[in-house]
Amino acid sequence: MNLYTFSDAEYSARMAAVRRRMADTGLDVLLISDPANLFYLIGYDAWSFYTPQLLYVPLDGDTIFYARAMDAHGATRTSWLPADQVVGYPEGYVHRDAEHPFDWVGERLAADIAPGSRIGLELDTHFFSPKAYLALRAALPGRELVDSAELVNWVRVIKSDTEIDVLRRAAQITTAAMTAALEAIDVGVPQHRVAAAISAAQIGGTDEVWGDYPAIVPMLPTSEAADTPHLTWTDRRFAADDAVAIELAGAHRRYHVPLARTIVLGRASDRIRQTEEAVAEGLAAVLDTMAAGVPVRDVSEAWNAVLRRRGLAKESRLGYSIGIAYPPDWGERTVSIRPSDDTVLAHNMTFHVICGMWMKGYGYEASESVRVTDDGVECFTDFPRGLLTKE
Amino acid sequence: MNLYTFSDAEYSARMAAVRRRMADTGLDVLLISDPANLFYLIGYDAWSFYTPQLLYVPLDGDTIFYARAMDAHGATRTSWLPADQVVGYPEGYVHRDAEHPFDWVGERLAADIAPGSRIGLELDTHFFSPKAYLALRAALPGRELVDSAELVNWVRVIKSDTEIDVLRRAAQITTAAMTAALEAIDVGVPQHRVAAAISAAQIGGTDEVWGDYPAIVPMLPTSEAADTPHLTWTDRRFAADDAVAIELAGAHRRYHVPLARTIVLGRASDRIRQTEEAVAEGLAAVLDTMAAGVPVRDVSEAWNAVLRRRGLAKESRLGYSIGIAYPPDWGERTVSIRPSDDTVLAHNMTFHVICGMWMKGYGYEASESVRVTDDGVECFTDFPRGLLTKE
Repeated sequence: MNLYTFSDAEYSARMAAVRRRMADTGLDVLLISDPANLFYLIGYDAWSFYTPQLLYVPLDGDTIFYARAMDAHGATRTSWLPADQVVGYPEGYVHRDAEHPFDWVGERLAADIAPGSRIGLELDTHFFSPKAYLALRAALPGRELVDSAELVNWVRVIKSDTEIDVLRRAAQITTAAMTAALEAIDVGVPQHRVAAAISAAQIGGTDEVWGDYPAIVPMLPTSEAADTPHLTWTDRRFAADDAVAIELAGAHRRYHVPLARTIVLGRASDRIRQTEEAVAEGLAAVLDTMAAGVPVRDVSEAWNAVLRRRGLAKESRLGYSIGIAYPPDWGERTVSIRPSDDTVLAHNMTFHVICGMWMKGYGYEASESVRVTDDGVECFTDFPRGLLTKE
Repeated sequence: MNLYTFSDAEYSARMAAVRRRMADTGLDVLLISDPANLFYLIGYDAWSFYTPQLLYVPLDGDTIFYARAMDAHGATRTSWLPADQVVGYPEGYVHRDAEHPFDWVGERLAADIAPGSRIGLELDTHFFSPKAYLALRAALPGRELVDSAELVNWVRVIKSDTEIDVLRRAAQITTAAMTAALEAIDVGVPQHRVAAAISAAQIGGTDEVWGDYPAIVPMLPTSEAADTPHLTWTDRRFAADDAVAIELAGAHRRYHVPLARTIVLGRASDRIRQTEEAVAEGLAAVLDTMAAGVPVRDVSEAWNAVLRRRGLAKESRLGYSIGIAYPPDWGERTVSIRPSDDTVLAHNMTFHVICGMWMKGYGYEASESVRVTDDGVECFTDFPRGLLTKE
């Protein structure tokens, strides 16, 4: 039984692209801990990232994956790596005060990485701690340790057609989950029951597509608390005229398609209607602007022009690159749609364009997940874009 | 609307305990990023930990919480901190290559932390990256930066009676979720449908207790893949005579009560029955041994004595301290039940005692979440402990 998703050719191409970028930036070795990057490069997929793990990628030579013994044992169930390129560190190193698993791993790396080598490390990923970094630094004297600056994440920005296909399948779950949310939500229903309905739809999937776990739980910021976009649910009951911003994603084989909509349980206030109108115009302008060859800053400017005309402003970014994701975030941590981003859009880049307006005392969100094409965008879902209401 | 869970007196006691330990270990300042520690100390609870956040705790003086502007805005909805002790860093610092939010935060800290101060940092937590650490180090020259060695986590090890009450409530959800799992699982049912049923029960909760999101997704390692405990589900259908190890938790207000059971869909093999017998005897011996005043190593030895007599061995630890948890782990990262742990059990310590045997080609798990009392343990759930079967 092997569960990996892509062809040998695709994995080879991915690894080759990473090594080209390593060569371009003068890296002899890359050490990878980000679970999304591990999944991308070797197919490895397990909920094991809460203990340290590391993929050793030399410019030439064999890649080796280091994980906790308990996890290394079955790593080849999801990874194409041969068993002799998976190494488990002893269980005794787990959650120890004076030692770190990377003391043990670092000793082995020192045998493979010559002094004088330049090593790229993922210094800003979630599952590579300062203690892990300091352990490697101590074990690898005489080597230069530098920030890889999301090297693999940047390779992931342009998707293959197979990846686009997986995203399209994930999008079917997105639609099912948003539909389940709208069915479940009502005046008097407690928030956690709606979250449960969304989660069941996300994991249950559709008849054709099984649901993987999303990297972020369903978000339901409501009315006056909607100025706080990342507050999670409680048992508070939805009340008449509540405006609820629903943000969720469908996930299939770790690929995510997020979607946000706002629903009013009754009559929408004038200020919500005004925000809806501004966002609708702004989002349409953004999607009209996006196409291969267009600089991201032009996309950002299309949005800001609409907002300025209406006397509004949004400080946070307008969107971000999407694809593979693990908790706690479904962004790729590469391209951000904002004026300071230097990226030029290319065919098969994929984004979550999220027009979230978190105002004093209320919030409004509408978004689309899109693929960039040569002459525009493909929206992954086809969900009514305006303010939704339920009487 | 304020959602925090505990009394002012309890929060004061927690902060005082942390400051006592800071004084004992010679720390002038503690900087905290672990979301479980933030929740414990200031009540802050939001899915915002994927961007950098930091609580500044001086030995004397006001605590200040630094978060992304978008999140800082509403932090007082869940935290008891007054608004003027919550500071947002500008949105422009999010996911930037050349800059880090803690460049900005570090500048402010430098104004508050005198040169010569000794600062404790959480060097092995999930949401404090090496880049964040290096930013603080650069911003705070002349201060000594040391590993706080899970200082707050260790304060959390002994629970208050109020915390025990929240855990008992979470346990109701644990029972409901395990019941839902056993109802949903059957020959021919795909794994993801069972995971969806578990998730709906976990979040939906019971009539009395609302479900919070668990820190780990449901685990369903099955038959030959059961040697891989952290593999997540796919759409593989359960087959006749499959042995499935189900590991899940109920969560309420971030407190977790995990539980593991094994179910056979048909006839159990002799080796599974033998493992069941060994685990039953071992788990009973462990629970009989546990009580306030007993060294953890004696607990570990009680288990190993049973295994040795049967010619078995288990390399991974037998359990760990539980309480507050955020993804990706529901362990507290403090006490581990293994021979090398020096802890002596105390009243109101709480553990997940997990007898997971991951053998070549199959696995068997049974666990109990327990509270240590003066003369034994209280099991949080009351679920049939042996191998479960479904014809």
